Amino acid sequence: MNSFGKNIKFQIFGESHGHSIGGILDGIPSGLEIDFDLIKSNLAKRRCNAFGTTTRKEPDEISFLSGVKDGFTTGTPIAFALPNKLHQPSDYHFEVTPRPGHSDFTQIAKYGKFADISGGGHSSGRLTTPLIVAGSIAQMLMPEITFSAKIEEIGGTQNWDELLRATTDAGDSLGGIVSCTISVIPAGKGEPFFYSIESALSAMMFSIPGVKGIEFGAGFASARMKGSDYNDIITDKSGTTQTNNTAGISGGISNGNDIHFRVAFRPTSSIGKSQKTVNLQTNEITEIKVQGRHDVCFALRTPVILESAAALVILDLLS
Amino acid sequence: MNSFGKNIKFQIFGESHGHSIGGILDGIPSGLEIDFDLIKSNLAKRRCNAFGTTTRKEPDEISFLSGVKDGFTTGTPIAFALPNKLHQPSDYHFEVTPRPGHSDFTQIAKYGKFADISGGGHSSGRLTTPLIVAGSIAQMLMPEITFSAKIEEIGGTQNWDELLRATTDAGDSLGGIVSCTISVIPAGKGEPFFYSIESALSAMMFSIPGVKGIEFGAGFASARMKGSDYNDIITDKSGTTQTNNTAGISGGISNGNDIHFRVAFRPTSSIGKSQKTVNLQTNEITEIKVQGRHDVCFALRTPVILESAAALVILDLLS
Amino acid sequence: MNSFGKNIKFQIFGESHGHSIGGILDGIPSGLEIDFDLIKSNLAKRRCNAFGTTTRKEPDEISFLSGVKDGFTTGTPIAFALPNKLHQPSDYHFEVTPRPGHSDFTQIAKYGKFADISGGGHSSGRLTTPLIVAGSIAQMLMPEITFSAKIEEIGGTQNWDELLRATTDAGDSLGGIVSCTISVIPAGKGEPFFYSIESALSAMMFSIPGVKGIEFGAGFASARMKGSDYNDIITDKSGTTQTNNTAGISGGISNGNDIHFRVAFRPTSSIGKSQKTVNLQTNEITEIKVQGRHDVCFALRTPVILESAAALVILDLLS
Amino acid sequence: MNSFGKNIKFQIFGESHGHSIGGILDGIPSGLEIDFDLIKSNLAKRRCNAFGTTTRKEPDEISFLSGVKDGFTTGTPIAFALPNKLHQPSDYHFEVTPRPGHSDFTQIAKYGKFADISGGGHSSGRLTTPLIVAGSIAQMLMPEITFSAKIEEIGGTQNWDELLRATTDAGDSLGGIVSCTISVIPAGKGEPFFYSIESALSAMMFSIPGVKGIEFGAGFASARMKGSDYNDIITDKSGTTQTNNTAGISGGISNGNDIHFRVAFRPTSSIGKSQKTVNLQTNEITEIKVQGRHDVCFALRTPVILESAAALVILDLLS
Repeated sequence: MNSFGKNIKFQIFGESHGHSIGGILDGIPSGLEIDFDLIKSNLAKRRCNAFGTTTRKEPDEISFLSGVKDGFTTGTPIAFALPNKLHQPSDYHFEVTPRPGHSDFTQIAKYGKFADISGGGHSSGRLTTPLIVAGSIAQMLMPEITFSAKIEEIGGTQNWDELLRATTDAGDSLGGIVSCTISVIPAGKGEPFFYSIESALSAMMFSIPGVKGIEFGAGFASARMKGSDYNDIITDKSGTTQTNNTAGISGGISNGNDIHFRVAFRPTSSIGKSQKTVNLQTNEITEIKVQGRHDVCFALRTPVILESAAALVILDLLS
Repeated sequence: MNSFGKNIKFQIFGESHGHSIGGILDGIPSGLEIDFDLIKSNLAKRRCNAFGTTTRKEPDEISFLSGVKDGFTTGTPIAFALPNKLHQPSDYHFEVTPRPGHSDFTQIAKYGKFADISGGGHSSGRLTTPLIVAGSIAQMLMPEITFSAKIEEIGGTQNWDELLRATTDAGDSLGGIVSCTISVIPAGKGEPFFYSIESALSAMMFSIPGVKGIEFGAGFASARMKGSDYNDIITDKSGTTQTNNTAGISGGISNGNDIHFRVAFRPTSSIGKSQKTVNLQTNEITEIKVQGRHDVCFALRTPVILESAAALVILDLLS
Repeated sequence: MNSFGKNIKFQIFGESHGHSIGGILDGIPSGLEIDFDLIKSNLAKRRCNAFGTTTRKEPDEISFLSGVKDGFTTGTPIAFALPNKLHQPSDYHFEVTPRPGHSDFTQIAKYGKFADISGGGHSSGRLTTPLIVAGSIAQMLMPEITFSAKIEEIGGTQNWDELLRATTDAGDSLGGIVSCTISVIPAGKGEPFFYSIESALSAMMFSIPGVKGIEFGAGFASARMKGSDYNDIITDKSGTTQTNNTAGISGGISNGNDIHFRVAFRPTSSIGKSQKTVNLQTNEITEIKVQGRHDVCFALRTPVILESAAALVILDLLS
Repeated sequence: MNSFGKNIKFQIFGESHGHSIGGILDGIPSGLEIDFDLIKSNLAKRRCNAFGTTTRKEPDEISFLSGVKDGFTTGTPIAFALPNKLHQPSDYHFEVTPRPGHSDFTQIAKYGKFADISGGGHSSGRLTTPLIVAGSIAQMLMPEITFSAKIEEIGGTQNWDELLRATTDAGDSLGGIVSCTISVIPAGKGEPFFYSIESALSAMMFSIPGVKGIEFGAGFASARMKGSDYNDIITDKSGTTQTNNTAGISGGISNGNDIHFRVAFRPTSSIGKSQKTVNLQTNEITEIKVQGRHDVCFALRTPVILESAAALVILDLLS
């Protein structure tokens, strides 16, 4: 099921090369003034004209179909759509020779011969566009909370320009690590079991294509610490801590300090280099090169996606 | 909300020092023969008599209140309870001087003065007991799938005996890394958005007390790989891959290879060493030592918890 | 929350006088050939050109935005939209002088001054259009089950032509009773508690504007019967019964006989006759006449709505 | 799935002749003082010693397993159980010769040979006991709202003593009509689609064994009224109406007037009179008489069930 939320509901739709992509966001109170500039600006950040990102630059023209009147929310479900304009039908037949590392094979396994995998189908990174629209609206409802993501490293380095160029020239691709800080939600939010803040945030982050790991605060490094080093000393009755190894979450519940997490993106699966794969019809091994437009490093475009996605989660948690 | 599942439902209840702990598991078909020995054996693994684990050894006597008749499931909700027998009311007042790194503070922030935080309350590691009961039943329904977890490292080492003794002597605590392999679920399961297999598994794993990170397959290391190294080459039409960097999941959907993930546990928060904390009544800094029974390293007891928790997730996914 | 379903999900959107109405239907398997003629035919039945129905005749041009390719479902969420073309902004100010019996007052109470109540807003009977689209797709998936609704009476009579004309002339409105038969779902479906078949069907039927009562089988009359008259005698081991007072449902679960229910529609609230109401600004009583296009008897248009709505419920139940 | 609620969660468990019945109520805030007398008093009303009700009088001793400490809720899930003490294993074999009108046949169809149908199993009226416990707690949270149900008629009469005796003597059974008034919830609650107040209340009421119809306000009679008679005139800006044909709900949303509904109970299915049924093993018609303890008229015991069930629904709606 492709819907999110307990207190608000977000249902996403669309395929990379279909008619439109979009979503329905339900549970938003009436009277919120939509900041269209914020939406545009966030969509522009996601398009990202940086070197190493795809040359498909959709204009991302958004239509609100319901729930917004004269620039304000009406309290009913907010439906919106963005047409796909610049898709180019592929010459390749990935339904026969699935790309290694890509969801071609798994989508065929799930949906069969009627799967619409062109451009990645419903699993495409393009589907993060509606996520940004919904997340931007969530941010408008919580102006007192900041969501701030940044790229920590690309391909293992923090100055990645040269590596990115060399990798592009080699027809290869890169991953990266992106962090996000949420400042700050009140103490006492989240649930001990099954809806811990880490559970809610991680479930959302693993919906973003390419994410293969997440850690909160000291994360994996905490497994190598002593308790006496790890434990964050509380310094006043409001709950401020000296350190923040636990990332503002204890027992699944917020403690009023910053929430901080890091996400690992695998390298983009589509690469220009020749790769082996199986021909699903003949069961023979063959070679493919993935041409066309794709990101050398999708991670470069993801900070705004993390911010938007985190905002949706926090809105649901606080609603 | 303390409930899990879309196709099956598991609702957990209990506090560490309350009357009973237990749960209701709904959606299990009729006619499953309950393997009581498996439940007992899994509960024994969780109790774990290893050096470095708590001396509170509850007998874990389980009563089935409904849904099981003559050893077989009837198809109606399965309720079960395990009494708390060996709780010792603490002499300490953690509601006034909350333990650093513990959920004392966040539970008070959430529930106020009526919070039952004794022994960790509803956030206690003891609540993983009902999870094991439910997960064991889930495993009985899927005998063709194995769930196999193991400790990778404790305190950063793979031979941790000496470190564990020294840490115990010092009144300190340790974390660890535990991995889990699921062999194997059919290709085509999971959803592209919001219910990716990684989303479902990570949401569950972050419900287990002390987990602060999770990675699938190559995980964080994948962020430093090239696509040409990362991409798993498909070697036949059934989807077998040469490598398994993606951990059997592509685009959120299973590809028929092993699912593999690693989880980071922070060190146990309760330590014997003296620690500073705030007195919530006076707002002054004070020193506390946490005596009583607690694990030096909770991670030691967690492999069976990961296996059970993963089984619940996979059952929900396949139901 | 304006979403339906446990196993399939249907989220509806739109306002009577907004940009578009539509929905997202998720959980439909891939490979279903969409019978566009059935959708068109069902939408035409709802438009219904009978005397006594509104003169607003939207063309109901439907666009599929996702989830359908080359006429077949792809397995991903099916989004569709129908533009509102023929709405006429009202000259009346029902936000000041709410219509008696209408949802003007309650929508203002719920959404405040940003409510979009024009034409009934999100509560309009027009929102049954997306319900028909989704229900028609549901029917395509269950060709072996028939959903057959018919008008039992209008204004208390079974030959209502004359009454309808007289009521129209008087500027008044009528209600009616509509029945629906579902032939036939397998025995053993439904849940004893909270998801009985009656629960699921009634929850859906009370979403249809104007419904104020529902009864299954002998319904209210059964309250006046003896058990020896009411009990349906089972005549063979497949569960066939001599009578069907229980409407094919016992203990919330289907018994394999026809499911039959009757629904009561109150008279349309918009009437041409002069009515008193309060002016919400001055708190004074005033008189209003509701001009413009509206149904004298909405019930006339509802059989296809009941069939579609029932099909969605049964699909969710059988999925 | 046997769980209820969007904002609160109630999961019910138990079989009529099993170990215990009970439930888990989650989402109740901390600090509510449990009024144990109210629970006892409501359970006593359900046991109901009136002539015409079953002679099985369970003591209804309730144990709170979690979520309550020193008489106050702690904010975590409230689990409770009531043992079954007075069940008598039946001499009859209703799994072979299912009682007409009873859920024997449908439970066997659903659960197969492992079904526990003794005493009605999970579908027994006894399962309304945990509903009363949960509903009583819900009432404690909303002391400003009254839930008041009463028997309108039994077997079609309002003075039913004589009819009840005669029916008992004849080994037959009776149904009845019970009404419930909710005074009063604020205007603006409920949703236009899929979660109208009528939807939520009817779904719950049809979970109560034996309910076959529900109507709100003028209900079925409204189908025979003119709009000019039906429409409730609003007499002041707070939304007070002159009449209350719509039962306080317009467009699915509350208008601040009393909510009123009537529920039809079919006659109890278990009767002493000889009845024909099929032998599921031989497919031959046979005669059975249902002896043992059962209600001649279950409706007599239901007012407190309706009040409790309605309270749960309203709590979920207002949470």
